[in-house]
Amino acid sequence: MIHPNMATMLGVLTTDAQIAPPLLQKALSTACDLSFNRISVDGDTSTSDCVLLLANGASGVTIDESNIDQFQAALNEICIQLAQMIVRDGEGVSKFVEITVTGTETDEEAHQIGNTIATSPLVKTAFAGSDANWGRILAAAGRAGIPFDQYDTILTIGDFTNTLELLRGGTPTGYVESAADAIFRADDIQVHLSVGSGDGTATVWTGDLTHDYITINADYRT
Amino acid sequence: MIHPNMATMLGVLTTDAQIAPPLLQKALSTACDLSFNRISVDGDTSTSDCVLLLANGASGVTIDESNIDQFQAALNEICIQLAQMIVRDGEGVSKFVEITVTGTETDEEAHQIGNTIATSPLVKTAFAGSDANWGRILAAAGRAGIPFDQYDTILTIGDFTNTLELLRGGTPTGYVESAADAIFRADDIQVHLSVGSGDGTATVWTGDLTHDYITINADYRT
Repeated sequence: MIHPNMATMLGVLTTDAQIAPPLLQKALSTACDLSFNRISVDGDTSTSDCVLLLANGASGVTIDESNIDQFQAALNEICIQLAQMIVRDGEGVSKFVEITVTGTETDEEAHQIGNTIATSPLVKTAFAGSDANWGRILAAAGRAGIPFDQYDTILTIGDFTNTLELLRGGTPTGYVESAADAIFRADDIQVHLSVGSGDGTATVWTGDLTHDYITINADYRT
Repeated sequence: MIHPNMATMLGVLTTDAQIAPPLLQKALSTACDLSFNRISVDGDTSTSDCVLLLANGASGVTIDESNIDQFQAALNEICIQLAQMIVRDGEGVSKFVEITVTGTETDEEAHQIGNTIATSPLVKTAFAGSDANWGRILAAAGRAGIPFDQYDTILTIGDFTNTLELLRGGTPTGYVESAADAIFRADDIQVHLSVGSGDGTATVWTGDLTHDYITINADYRT
């Protein structure tokens, strides 16, 4: 039961910075949009998701508009780390998958495409099978509701060490199949899909869909 | 790879009626919206879905605005039967599930709620486990994007022979758990969710999410 809408969690973050509530709320919302709202395990949400950020000012260090950027960067990093831990701990997840979409007009469009790929059962079972099935990834992107030209697409996969370009201009690059499979056999894998020349970009994190997900959720009783 | 958007299929229907192409197209679109666009197995669509309806006029019977209703009713029935066969034949499907949503303002809203329930992995694994887990059904309905009051909900389940009311006014009715489980152990099950007093209604058909779905789609290679 994990999907980006506060991501099925009760989260509490604390800081000893001195920071006014409106600025603190704004910083938290920004961080959440880049972290807890960018993860999905099964697309299902919980009814009680929330995240709180408490500041007690004990350090005496004041954060205001003049130095918020550094605070924001640290907060983003913490939230992204925590969000990724939620994915790794997801029901039946055996692989951690980072999906980056670029080239759309807006970040929201990139997020929508990334999210559709991340929640596609066909894509997620391909991850489970270590199958570098680019057809499923492109098909999911194509039904995300954001128009793009298939001949503009570039698809690259990676395992956080090596990367391999599978498609360019919507056409297979002539890569060696065993090299693609080797990357997708890693525990942590990356998918990067470029769909055009726009400045929009988004990264989402998800897992694979495995037998253990079925076992956990078909036998579990609330 | 089955979801309502012409439902992953190449469909050809034929009739020996004499009927003008515009009327034929309208009848087909109407029938599709009530059948092939109301089914889902995994939420993933194909890139080559289509349905064609061919009329050769050989019977000499003319269908026009004066008698289209009877033709439409028959066409709807055929299309719904075929659509249900697609669900029953879906990857790893062990249960056929009919979900009816009523009480919304419009049919489209009912369809959107039904579709969200039908594509929820948590709901579909509960079906697989014969678990009458009303919490998952209500949670999926609640995230469909159509506002309703939980205290207006009535949830009834059935096996096409018996029915059992699980919730009324959003509160469990005091039903016997074993009776609910007995219904959900059937191969064909029904879910009826009423969310208010509007005239909107929609029925969608789906299946459960089983280990076989994972096996078929994690090992299958295009």
